[in-house]
Amino acid sequence: MSKTNQPNLAALRAEEPSLKSRYAAFQAAGLALDMTRGKPCAQQLDLSLDMLTVLTRDDYKAADGTDCRNYGGLDGLPEAKALFAEFLGVQKDEVIIGGNSSLALMHDTLARAMSHGVPGGAASWTSQAAAQGGKVKFICPAPGYDRHFALCEHFGIEMITVDLGESGLDIDAVERLVASDELIKGLWLVPKYGNPSGLIVSNEVIARLARMKCAAPDFRVYWDDAYTVHHLTDARPDQLNLQSACKAAGTDDRVLLFGSTSKISFSGSGIAVVGGSAANMAWYRGHLGFQTIGPDKLNQLRHLRFFKDMAGIEAHMKKHAAVIKPKFDAVASALKSQLEGVASWTTPTGGYFVSVDTPDGCAKRTVQLAKAAGVSLTGAGATFPYGKDPRDRNIRVAPTLPSLADIEKAMDVFCVCVKLAALEKSQ
Amino acid sequence: MSKTNQPNLAALRAEEPSLKSRYAAFQAAGLALDMTRGKPCAQQLDLSLDMLTVLTRDDYKAADGTDCRNYGGLDGLPEAKALFAEFLGVQKDEVIIGGNSSLALMHDTLARAMSHGVPGGAASWTSQAAAQGGKVKFICPAPGYDRHFALCEHFGIEMITVDLGESGLDIDAVERLVASDELIKGLWLVPKYGNPSGLIVSNEVIARLARMKCAAPDFRVYWDDAYTVHHLTDARPDQLNLQSACKAAGTDDRVLLFGSTSKISFSGSGIAVVGGSAANMAWYRGHLGFQTIGPDKLNQLRHLRFFKDMAGIEAHMKKHAAVIKPKFDAVASALKSQLEGVASWTTPTGGYFVSVDTPDGCAKRTVQLAKAAGVSLTGAGATFPYGKDPRDRNIRVAPTLPSLADIEKAMDVFCVCVKLAALEKSQ
Repeated sequence: MSKTNQPNLAALRAEEPSLKSRYAAFQAAGLALDMTRGKPCAQQLDLSLDMLTVLTRDDYKAADGTDCRNYGGLDGLPEAKALFAEFLGVQKDEVIIGGNSSLALMHDTLARAMSHGVPGGAASWTSQAAAQGGKVKFICPAPGYDRHFALCEHFGIEMITVDLGESGLDIDAVERLVASDELIKGLWLVPKYGNPSGLIVSNEVIARLARMKCAAPDFRVYWDDAYTVHHLTDARPDQLNLQSACKAAGTDDRVLLFGSTSKISFSGSGIAVVGGSAANMAWYRGHLGFQTIGPDKLNQLRHLRFFKDMAGIEAHMKKHAAVIKPKFDAVASALKSQLEGVASWTTPTGGYFVSVDTPDGCAKRTVQLAKAAGVSLTGAGATFPYGKDPRDRNIRVAPTLPSLADIEKAMDVFCVCVKLAALEKSQ
Repeated sequence: MSKTNQPNLAALRAEEPSLKSRYAAFQAAGLALDMTRGKPCAQQLDLSLDMLTVLTRDDYKAADGTDCRNYGGLDGLPEAKALFAEFLGVQKDEVIIGGNSSLALMHDTLARAMSHGVPGGAASWTSQAAAQGGKVKFICPAPGYDRHFALCEHFGIEMITVDLGESGLDIDAVERLVASDELIKGLWLVPKYGNPSGLIVSNEVIARLARMKCAAPDFRVYWDDAYTVHHLTDARPDQLNLQSACKAAGTDDRVLLFGSTSKISFSGSGIAVVGGSAANMAWYRGHLGFQTIGPDKLNQLRHLRFFKDMAGIEAHMKKHAAVIKPKFDAVASALKSQLEGVASWTTPTGGYFVSVDTPDGCAKRTVQLAKAAGVSLTGAGATFPYGKDPRDRNIRVAPTLPSLADIEKAMDVFCVCVKLAALEKSQ
């Protein structure tokens, strides 16, 4: 999406009266549509309803006899670890089952790296920065996920934006940066069906992330594999596993992988996992033992009983795709029929988002106009560090929650707003 | 338990041959009994079995219509907050429902205080300490809970031991300490049925904790109300609520209260809560919003459906008491019949532990002897900061997990070991 959208102004101006009257009609309709976040819809949640009753009065023990109703099992049930190792594409000793939120696992690993440091580092990130009179820094490919950026801000980590455009991550820039600055301690990336771009990180980029020279011996890639099985089509990306690539490159400890079933089973009642080298897992387990006596093993058991295995998860995700693919199609169809030549956008084959680039300087105004017509969108700028899109053009569209009919309505509103914003901008 | 146990050595020596032959018989019996931790037994967990199936395909919505299967509800369902506000004895806006572990809530509040500071403080605890060239310090009443002490060590917090003897907390010492040192930022206390002492903190101490002058404006009492409804008898302690006392004293932000249903419903699959002033809760919520999108609301709903209200929780706890009271009685009876004059101990009316003081210098050896005879006890010293019991005499006995028959066996072993350790010590 690196090209600049330069709409045909004459055509837009000709359409202006019609756009204005359509907009007025939207305002009069009293819409209240929410496309702000990647939330599943009720029909998706219904797919997992049997999980609510899958455990019974006679079924609460793990395969090794562990009573899942009692304390213990700090890093997860063995069979849950086996399943989610496969899920993340790592070995059984390279995964820990956490609570209900992969965001919490990212938050906690970051908090621990700041306060205590990580394997390979001489000291905590905070004290290294203090000793050098600088700040801990993270590379933040953008557009990206706002909650990643929020975590950096929260922990006082300086964000360095690197382009994540239609041709993928600017890995040349990443290599240059990490080679020269020992306080660059990490990089965020959603490897598959990225948020918001839908981008699938290429195998070349993965190989280079694994072998690039880092000035910081304790550099970490935060590999947020949130959409690893969230396919919208029958295509299955043939993506290298970064942990495997790191092992091959002798940089075993470089990556922390994150995943969850938040958008597979129930959002908030799923299970979250963190993966990485045995050294990284020992580090995490060591910290975890101070924080908790153990996770909710009954909920792990629910997932095991309901999904059984990876084939079960894959089959389940096809049902999700059947529910949400028509919504993505509706978004694509609205964009194509109404914004051709005005904006550009992604056509993801998985994940939860469509990324739209308006003409430069029009994103904020578009979101504002849509809001005033009853359609809530993710805030413009949210997909960039510090909430600042330098070209004020990127908008994340989240089509899963509303009904198909509402998506169609919302996209009509959206497209009209983009054009109105472009017209305003041209004046 | 401040007195020194000075056993009648002549009597012990007379008993020595019999003690030695009983010990040899225990060793030969191949026992494997675990009294290390406060874990509920299967019969207690059975009491909540209906919770496994209490939600159904048609019952997953909160009272306000919230679909508990989806994201949201950062600080808990309104009805869960109402119930657990009552549980902690605070107002509805003074509670947040966390994940499954109150230990995690304590860990996280501590981590945040260290890295970001708390309301009333000029800076993070870490930077205040650095600015003054000192260390953050906590007052640790002892004997106390080993995991509290472990958290302090983990975060590099210096522990100052204050006596928590049979006459309660040495509040004079606490007042002196907090008045003079601005880097004393906190104090741990289990207010009811303390771990391991079973002690009920007196209303005088509570009132003085609320109104004492603290050099640190950002001092916090970590009020771990882990056993607030865990009565063993029909008596109900008439205990002041520290949050109410603080409000009355104008020190509203002084306390953070913690609780959970880990020993009420399922251990690991319960729900945990943190309470405190509206300012403290706003602070916590602010941090929480970076860490997670929300807790497991379905599990909150399970608890609400199963317990309904405080009366439901109280009634449920009577069933727990019926299961475990005989075990506590067996411990008391063994101690009384075998260790009178040799050791001293508590007779708690609630909670999960009995605290035993052997003669000075005998705790480690007792635990070692018991282990060699197949009875695992909490490590000697665990109940003191840095794992160091200055008089090497305190042992925490956790009688809930083993069967009554096993408790009787284990206590026989225990009593013999105390006497053998005392004999060795006297030589």
